[in-house]
Amino acid sequence: MLVSLECDYNNGACDQILRRLLETNRERLPGYGTDKYSESAKAKIRSACGCDTADIEFLAGGTQTNAVVISSLLRNHEGVVCAGTGHIHVHEAGAIEYTGHKIISLPGVLGKLSAETLSNYLERFHDDPSREHMVWPGLVYVSYPTEYGTLYSAAELAALSDVCREYRIPLFLDGARLGYGLMSREADLTLPDIAKLCDVFYIGGTKVGAFCGEAVVFTGVELPEHFTHFMKKHGALLAKGRLLGLQFDTLFTDDLYFRLGEHGVHMAERMKTILREHGLPFFLETPTNQQFILMADHQLVPFSKQVTYSYWEKADADHTVIRLATSWATRDDELEALREALGVIGG
Amino acid sequence: MLVSLECDYNNGACDQILRRLLETNRERLPGYGTDKYSESAKAKIRSACGCDTADIEFLAGGTQTNAVVISSLLRNHEGVVCAGTGHIHVHEAGAIEYTGHKIISLPGVLGKLSAETLSNYLERFHDDPSREHMVWPGLVYVSYPTEYGTLYSAAELAALSDVCREYRIPLFLDGARLGYGLMSREADLTLPDIAKLCDVFYIGGTKVGAFCGEAVVFTGVELPEHFTHFMKKHGALLAKGRLLGLQFDTLFTDDLYFRLGEHGVHMAERMKTILREHGLPFFLETPTNQQFILMADHQLVPFSKQVTYSYWEKADADHTVIRLATSWATRDDELEALREALGVIGG
Amino acid sequence: MLVSLECDYNNGACDQILRRLLETNRERLPGYGTDKYSESAKAKIRSACGCDTADIEFLAGGTQTNAVVISSLLRNHEGVVCAGTGHIHVHEAGAIEYTGHKIISLPGVLGKLSAETLSNYLERFHDDPSREHMVWPGLVYVSYPTEYGTLYSAAELAALSDVCREYRIPLFLDGARLGYGLMSREADLTLPDIAKLCDVFYIGGTKVGAFCGEAVVFTGVELPEHFTHFMKKHGALLAKGRLLGLQFDTLFTDDLYFRLGEHGVHMAERMKTILREHGLPFFLETPTNQQFILMADHQLVPFSKQVTYSYWEKADADHTVIRLATSWATRDDELEALREALGVIGG
Amino acid sequence: MLVSLECDYNNGACDQILRRLLETNRERLPGYGTDKYSESAKAKIRSACGCDTADIEFLAGGTQTNAVVISSLLRNHEGVVCAGTGHIHVHEAGAIEYTGHKIISLPGVLGKLSAETLSNYLERFHDDPSREHMVWPGLVYVSYPTEYGTLYSAAELAALSDVCREYRIPLFLDGARLGYGLMSREADLTLPDIAKLCDVFYIGGTKVGAFCGEAVVFTGVELPEHFTHFMKKHGALLAKGRLLGLQFDTLFTDDLYFRLGEHGVHMAERMKTILREHGLPFFLETPTNQQFILMADHQLVPFSKQVTYSYWEKADADHTVIRLATSWATRDDELEALREALGVIGG
Repeated sequence: MLVSLECDYNNGACDQILRRLLETNRERLPGYGTDKYSESAKAKIRSACGCDTADIEFLAGGTQTNAVVISSLLRNHEGVVCAGTGHIHVHEAGAIEYTGHKIISLPGVLGKLSAETLSNYLERFHDDPSREHMVWPGLVYVSYPTEYGTLYSAAELAALSDVCREYRIPLFLDGARLGYGLMSREADLTLPDIAKLCDVFYIGGTKVGAFCGEAVVFTGVELPEHFTHFMKKHGALLAKGRLLGLQFDTLFTDDLYFRLGEHGVHMAERMKTILREHGLPFFLETPTNQQFILMADHQLVPFSKQVTYSYWEKADADHTVIRLATSWATRDDELEALREALGVIGG
Repeated sequence: MLVSLECDYNNGACDQILRRLLETNRERLPGYGTDKYSESAKAKIRSACGCDTADIEFLAGGTQTNAVVISSLLRNHEGVVCAGTGHIHVHEAGAIEYTGHKIISLPGVLGKLSAETLSNYLERFHDDPSREHMVWPGLVYVSYPTEYGTLYSAAELAALSDVCREYRIPLFLDGARLGYGLMSREADLTLPDIAKLCDVFYIGGTKVGAFCGEAVVFTGVELPEHFTHFMKKHGALLAKGRLLGLQFDTLFTDDLYFRLGEHGVHMAERMKTILREHGLPFFLETPTNQQFILMADHQLVPFSKQVTYSYWEKADADHTVIRLATSWATRDDELEALREALGVIGG
Repeated sequence: MLVSLECDYNNGACDQILRRLLETNRERLPGYGTDKYSESAKAKIRSACGCDTADIEFLAGGTQTNAVVISSLLRNHEGVVCAGTGHIHVHEAGAIEYTGHKIISLPGVLGKLSAETLSNYLERFHDDPSREHMVWPGLVYVSYPTEYGTLYSAAELAALSDVCREYRIPLFLDGARLGYGLMSREADLTLPDIAKLCDVFYIGGTKVGAFCGEAVVFTGVELPEHFTHFMKKHGALLAKGRLLGLQFDTLFTDDLYFRLGEHGVHMAERMKTILREHGLPFFLETPTNQQFILMADHQLVPFSKQVTYSYWEKADADHTVIRLATSWATRDDELEALREALGVIGG
Repeated sequence: MLVSLECDYNNGACDQILRRLLETNRERLPGYGTDKYSESAKAKIRSACGCDTADIEFLAGGTQTNAVVISSLLRNHEGVVCAGTGHIHVHEAGAIEYTGHKIISLPGVLGKLSAETLSNYLERFHDDPSREHMVWPGLVYVSYPTEYGTLYSAAELAALSDVCREYRIPLFLDGARLGYGLMSREADLTLPDIAKLCDVFYIGGTKVGAFCGEAVVFTGVELPEHFTHFMKKHGALLAKGRLLGLQFDTLFTDDLYFRLGEHGVHMAERMKTILREHGLPFFLETPTNQQFILMADHQLVPFSKQVTYSYWEKADADHTVIRLATSWATRDDELEALREALGVIGG
């Protein structure tokens, strides 16, 4: 058995979603997100965020969400600030720039942008007399968990939020893996905290139980006018919006979203134990569902016959950093197979 | 019972798709359209098109597909030609122009662009010494069925194709409702015909049995290099590409796509009979699944309490054109309810 | 001698501009339009417009001006409305669409958009329940004189302005040839009238005395924030802004701009007399500096050996419409040479 | 007397250009760069570059040139690579991203990108399995002189060129100040060398003797098809192209461009001596026309009453880096006035 640990989207949807798709399949519902399940999902998300006035919209995927949200919030002369490791900067094929806006990357540490780095940059920018020829910071982008699986502490996010508010720049949080962040044992942030500290963020469905779908939540900034129109202009408005609405309605019933996230991080903790038991050195051990392992290249050939992983980067001439990810769908037998595989290789 | 005839996307997915989603849900599959179901679907579509060399890619919705395909095929100085009623020109919120390209609209008749109109335009364009300051025609867009539910005959599409090939301009066919066109009793075009006459086209899934998804088929032009990369740049690459691949794999098993289309047009023929029996005047009677009815405004209030319809346009001070659509999902009881509603209103 | 009547930009700059370029050449001046001549030019234009609060910016050419102004005023979901013959729609190579916005073209008559046509369109648009999938009208574009050399009357422009204000849509006037319009014997509009009726317009320098340069005047709408920044982003901010400022400062000293315009239309009147005397049929006789003549094709070969003209369009199998243009720089000897050429051809 | 040393575009045009504008002003010439002076200028530039087959086009300014050239050469999935200090990355208001393409910035040293840094990046990129989600390097941008006034040696540029050719990526050189680079006493590169080592580059006119204008030279890559059309689409095609053609025709007659450049660097050497004599510490002493001085903040107030300079960046709490620039137009009396000003301040 080949164990698939290469990512957290190698699965279908959770059983509850499939069940509800079956139950509601024959209903006649209006299109473009105006159906009752979308409405119900929005109400449940508002409640989970502790924010009655939040505006919520559903999009299909993460890159699409980032591009639509960022370009709808930026004004002509503005760009978006992020850590150099930000997903929008590295792995979205230039989707943000395609909307005509620059990404202003700042140095980060383990995927995180610090309030100090941001503050220093903003201070320097506003002191610079040639700033009229520079791209203005119009939005700050962070991810939670980050692309490295790390987490901002409540204090760190609050500090970032303070800097943003001082400069009146909205703070946008990419929550593609939000469930795995919030349910981490090390997390000291709740969903209502995020709703308060950020101005807009999204709750990732694709990687946490859904076939597809991300829920964008506007709390500190107003929904950009004609937002669904702009989604359409971007090719991001599904005719059968019910597909997204129903999935999120399900995920936010009975805390399912959180339970799925919890399962993912629980399985990650078990995976970490197995990896440690077999002496595999961590390049980066994280409190969420992604773990980064330093592998000798000669081990990778036998390992890849047993386990699918993601290449992360070359560490040196003879070593490679790989990523192993669990998810809401990871099963006991998969971890057992990993243990066996490692035993065989003698990892 | 309120009868929903306002569109052909007020339903879920066909039973076969739901069944296969359930069956395959726990499989571990690679992302971004590299899964085995996507591969299988492509092979089946190639076979149905009678074109072994076709390249096929899956996107989530129609506007997205139009924007990605058109902008990936146009060169910097080019625009896309279509009838003034073309969906891309009227109802896609400016999605094509958002990619930086102009739509060159020509007069059409009942939604169709004639070879003569196109040829005259192209001849004038190439005779015009100021054409270097004009947008060059780089692609011709038609829809089948058109936005008015009408169909190109084989002769008409062949004539358009001839003009395009004379001028070396690719012909792109928007098949958002392709199933209802191909299965119309008046259609004299097959899928292999379309694959031969057009250079690129898409097979609409959203409106013919799927939750979402359109299959783009490149036959006469090469797949633009790095096409999936460009999809990503456009925010149009789903992480769980299996969702699209599996749906099309199902739709192209046992001619399901065609059977669904056939059901839709069969129900439309029955609906036309009911409408005629009740003396409702057709604004435009079509051979496909959309019918356009001229209603006196005083009838619309009682009618709307029984039937949901789409507003199409004002006809005069006292009359409105409405659209009624059937689909693969339209049921007998719905048509019966329509008959009853019309009896009550005395339409 | 070959007589050049093909356009109104086949000349250099007026003597006064050259003289002042020489006089000021060695001055050290700050860049990017912050020099004293740009300031002085703005003050003089404000005065000529009778509008103390107008904001004014200088750009280098017409297409650039149209693209920068239009895209800086439109919101994400909006497009610009114009007559089907509008320069932005026909002869600007897709420059507006390149900024991501659609041009919504309406039928015009002799280059003009009527208030009635605009009003009907806007009424229909706002009645259409599917307008959220359509491009919203966010700006109305007219040209004065139009691309056909025709003029809006004061009543016509006021009516357009009323419709725009009723719908709260800014009215933008392209004045690439404004001087030839305002100084036409048939004009009943003044520069202050235009400043009042329009919300933003530009005063064309390139075709009326300058080497290059257009002055954009914002009267009814505020200058978009960070406008010069957006000009830079568009590649439209000249380092030596003095080149534009000084030219407009000269053009708006001692009514030079108006005198240049007057000369151009005076020469056009004389040209019209010559053409009429030789029996050349007008396709369109205009009150400005461009005249449209219907020529038999067999006459064009000898004619083209004596006179350079612009091809406009084919009239029928044997006839062609050509354009002859005078300008501020047209000389007596040129019109005499035209008279001789026509005598020889027997036009 | 206030001495203006803040930049190299605070002047008009050189006398020879003004003289020729006067001489040719009354000639009737065709528009859009098709005039005889533009042709003549192209021939002279080809000759100066030692490249008979070069294609040459004229644009009005540097940012415009960078945006048009870069976006016309990049394919959909590609971005442009440059040093983090590259003008396009820092001071062009996001003009490149506005065309939909990402700038991939790499660490540079004193404004220069090394062949090793580029090579390492390209090797890593092509080894990265997730590169399909990353922006592909499609062009390499360098500036000569750099934004810091430094110069690539012949060996350094040749090494960069080798890496680019190994990876089949065109090398683009921004020569906004090319004259001051080529005529530096430390330069070991000639114009023909640059034509051979680069694939496309531009010869800056705005900062070296002209009112405006940059000449793009395509040597190693073909002129993108319909390039002037794309210029028009970008709003970058001047109606009176003669203004650019004539200026470059003049600059490339009797080696004027090189003599102007030589004057600028000669005056810079004299300025450096004066600065040194007065003990002003160099932050960066360069072999071209821009010098970077470290000033104590308390000195800046009196200094700024005598000399206009450019703020470059804060060095520490009490010191500021400023830039002083000479140009082709710097006069003896200006340097004398600088000497006097420094004497007064006791710099």
